[in-house]
Amino acid sequence: MSNHIHALTKQVFTFVSELYAYGVREVVVSPGSRSTPMAIAIEAHPKMKSWIHPDERSAAFFAMGLMKGSERPVAILCTSGSAAANYTPAISESQLSHLPLVVLTSDRPHELRGIGAPQAINQNNMFANFVQYQFDFPIAEGNDDEDYMTSTVKFQLQKASQYLYGPHRGPIHFNLPFREPLTPDVEKVEWLTSETKILPHYQKTTSLNEISSIVNKRKGIIIVGDMQHQDVDQILTFATIHDMPILADPLSQLRREHHPNVITTYDLLYRAGLEVEVDFIIRVGKPVISKKLNQWLKATDAFQILVQNNDYPDAFPIPPHVSYELSANDFFRQLSEATTVERKQWLQKWQSLEKHAQAEVKDYLRTATDEAVYVSNVLDKLTSQDALFVSNSMPIRDVDNLFMDCEAEVYANRGANGIDGVVSTALGMAVHKNITLLIGDLAFYHDMNGLLMSKLNDINLNIVLLNNDGGGIFSYLPQKEAAESYFERLFGTPTGLNFEHTALLYDFAFDRFESIESFKYTELSKFGAHIYEIMTHREDNRKQHLKLYKKLSDIINVTL
Amino acid sequence: MSNHIHALTKQVFTFVSELYAYGVREVVVSPGSRSTPMAIAIEAHPKMKSWIHPDERSAAFFAMGLMKGSERPVAILCTSGSAAANYTPAISESQLSHLPLVVLTSDRPHELRGIGAPQAINQNNMFANFVQYQFDFPIAEGNDDEDYMTSTVKFQLQKASQYLYGPHRGPIHFNLPFREPLTPDVEKVEWLTSETKILPHYQKTTSLNEISSIVNKRKGIIIVGDMQHQDVDQILTFATIHDMPILADPLSQLRREHHPNVITTYDLLYRAGLEVEVDFIIRVGKPVISKKLNQWLKATDAFQILVQNNDYPDAFPIPPHVSYELSANDFFRQLSEATTVERKQWLQKWQSLEKHAQAEVKDYLRTATDEAVYVSNVLDKLTSQDALFVSNSMPIRDVDNLFMDCEAEVYANRGANGIDGVVSTALGMAVHKNITLLIGDLAFYHDMNGLLMSKLNDINLNIVLLNNDGGGIFSYLPQKEAAESYFERLFGTPTGLNFEHTALLYDFAFDRFESIESFKYTELSKFGAHIYEIMTHREDNRKQHLKLYKKLSDIINVTL
Repeated sequence: MSNHIHALTKQVFTFVSELYAYGVREVVVSPGSRSTPMAIAIEAHPKMKSWIHPDERSAAFFAMGLMKGSERPVAILCTSGSAAANYTPAISESQLSHLPLVVLTSDRPHELRGIGAPQAINQNNMFANFVQYQFDFPIAEGNDDEDYMTSTVKFQLQKASQYLYGPHRGPIHFNLPFREPLTPDVEKVEWLTSETKILPHYQKTTSLNEISSIVNKRKGIIIVGDMQHQDVDQILTFATIHDMPILADPLSQLRREHHPNVITTYDLLYRAGLEVEVDFIIRVGKPVISKKLNQWLKATDAFQILVQNNDYPDAFPIPPHVSYELSANDFFRQLSEATTVERKQWLQKWQSLEKHAQAEVKDYLRTATDEAVYVSNVLDKLTSQDALFVSNSMPIRDVDNLFMDCEAEVYANRGANGIDGVVSTALGMAVHKNITLLIGDLAFYHDMNGLLMSKLNDINLNIVLLNNDGGGIFSYLPQKEAAESYFERLFGTPTGLNFEHTALLYDFAFDRFESIESFKYTELSKFGAHIYEIMTHREDNRKQHLKLYKKLSDIINVTL
Repeated sequence: MSNHIHALTKQVFTFVSELYAYGVREVVVSPGSRSTPMAIAIEAHPKMKSWIHPDERSAAFFAMGLMKGSERPVAILCTSGSAAANYTPAISESQLSHLPLVVLTSDRPHELRGIGAPQAINQNNMFANFVQYQFDFPIAEGNDDEDYMTSTVKFQLQKASQYLYGPHRGPIHFNLPFREPLTPDVEKVEWLTSETKILPHYQKTTSLNEISSIVNKRKGIIIVGDMQHQDVDQILTFATIHDMPILADPLSQLRREHHPNVITTYDLLYRAGLEVEVDFIIRVGKPVISKKLNQWLKATDAFQILVQNNDYPDAFPIPPHVSYELSANDFFRQLSEATTVERKQWLQKWQSLEKHAQAEVKDYLRTATDEAVYVSNVLDKLTSQDALFVSNSMPIRDVDNLFMDCEAEVYANRGANGIDGVVSTALGMAVHKNITLLIGDLAFYHDMNGLLMSKLNDINLNIVLLNNDGGGIFSYLPQKEAAESYFERLFGTPTGLNFEHTALLYDFAFDRFESIESFKYTELSKFGAHIYEIMTHREDNRKQHLKLYKKLSDIINVTL
């Protein structure tokens, strides 16, 4: 074994062992030549699972799905050049979603940079805007002290590990230049280890005395957004004992508990003109999806308390009056002692609103033929064993309005709220959970390449594809009226694609539905990969949605 | 009209007018809400052509194709958030290909940055590694001095214009935050102008006396890479008068001239072991595709003269002894006066090598059944009215070896040599030229979304798809032997896709060929969009290629 091969093998085998030690169990590899040393080290590691994906853009989103499903950091590996640039969209989403994506870009040696060498773009710090940490590795040189690279690898992984867990977690980028020959010595398997390290643990405590006078006021509500897998039982206990209504986002996973204090229809209620005076608000987790509730939060004078065991300022765009870095369970356990007030009537008022709004929605759904009735029906089909992955931008709004009786978990990419990479994220999650994907036709088109992973790896996935041939959400924007003559070309963007061909290309079973009657009696498959395409009409859809919003404004007046 | 609308309209209408003034005639728009002001201004401009593309990654490569076809700067526009991140691959390629891509990303207002607002990633300087210039605009505020924004727009476009033309040309990035309401006043069409500015002109002159003793040596060759649309007639005149062989890359466009001094088989000759002593080399344009010639350039002691009217250090990885920033025409016109030597025999030796190598290749093609015979046949089918767009990574190497008698222009993305965005670049070019795309199955898969532009806009394109079900070029790498057990999974990456479904999805006519006999008698279509899929075998292909390389080593010994 040459000095170079020795040093290279030591470097990449140590690297993969350290990734394993810090909790990485899966790596998504996109094929290429320069990445050969790392790719082989990953393949050779007995406990590391590799996925092969030829499109780097989809590959990175697939890794995001693996992270959401496994709650572990996941690595991605690509060759040098523009391949790496294709990772950018998923990295920007991972940062905002606090997902510890370990980005490994292979590079040509330092002396081939900036001189027009092929497959060489300026990769050093290329994701600077979107990563928590970045490091450009030296080359493993056989003639140097053998241990310098081993200690560099170990030190860098240790340094980066603080961003894989805890409050600052998010994507990290290692740029790895390699010199030819690129093949490590696979005989050296003893350099691959499966030891694990003790991972950092974060917990802060704070006294809640300062807010006791506030939370003893009568009119309080709890608003819960995406909790990112935190335990939530103390929220429900606190709300039960202290009669607090909980406005629960679908991503909070609280709606599936069917707790009597949980309010699900707040977006519709505020949209219909709800005006209710509130003394204080306890906000937990990430911002909610509902645009209307966020607008109200911005306008209200109520005292706002923010609880996050994550110090990233997720508070769009409403700064709280006081903020706690504390797990939700610890916060509500402590808060219970500080709270004495009775507020039965206050809770009942919210419960009454919820009851009437739910009844109105169900009445509406009996005759509706728009996307809402299909979305509601999809929710009916799901059980507590299922997880729903919901695409931006219209589907997540419909789920927000219609998730009432369902017991499934709900997930979405709500960092940058993009329509890119949704198919791949859902497929990555589907490795670890029983996923149904609800998606519109533009988001589906954007990431059709992602479907390849299902074909190559027999990943089960049900896709409910709401096809209104274009950008549905734009119909609700003010620029629809203002720029009528440009609307269909600039925002409608119909593609006219027949997605049955896509299904055939990627070995998905395919069913098309033109009416709710036929869809209603269709059972979603338990195995395999299926596309259920639902044909709807953007303009008709908009008109029916507006009708529902109008009907709801009546009940508000009756109830209050 | 409110102050805000007034200021917004003034801003975006001035912006589009300035883009027009600096030579932009086409903008590729990806739909979104935040980009509404610019999108409407572009639509409203009477002379600006807009293209709508829902996938930003493909959209940016499509714009690259428009630039390559029209030789003008082209702009791209998207909404805020991860949409912008999808532009990264094409921007990195544009930088290395010196293409003046004007990247316009819409953003949320400054006060919504960094606080977890939806559709807001950190866009400021997000392409820093890949652009020549970047600027984050202020917001047009109605209550300020009305002229500040107009002058900012004009100044910024003027400043950026130096990167749209001339030696430093390349991508520029304008980040444009907009505050709601987003609809400009389309009645103000008089603010849209179609005036043009006088564009900068670059020319440097240098005395060539210092190299006269060098170029009067006998053994000199000229190597010409991609000339980026420079005039080339003086190269041919000089070579004719002074008996200089020209080793011409397919992207030099010199091979189609069928000039007796042009050598086309040098990659095969050097691969077969050619050893010939050379006194001096004149290198013109970008580096050549041939890896073998580049390796020889690195090893040779010959005096190397570099001529580029572009100061980007394209000289991979071989620094010249002397370098001129001068147009090729000016250089060779001046050089003619400094040259007196006779070298008829020297030229004849090269011509003899070329003749024999061509004969060997043609003999090989008579019985071959590998991809080479198909590529050669595609070249036979093309006329001087055609342009061939060639994908990385195997097709461009085959074209390099087989382009002898063809008269078509040849183009490729040879900045970062990626396999991403190839379909979209070819389609963008097809708007301006009569394009045939030669592409392998992995590159085709990577950018299938790009095909949508043909369907939506009836863009004519012939695609010759070499389908060997995986990554063909990897079979030639040393790691094939070294890592045999990992090879097929990590590098072969067969997808098993049946691309007939892709053709049906995007309204392409589709023909599949399993033998050269049937393909030989097929005429490529003059209209519409066609895919000609050719089924080949990676391993068989490799074996036949290696046979050709072996045969050629014999003629070298005979000829020298």
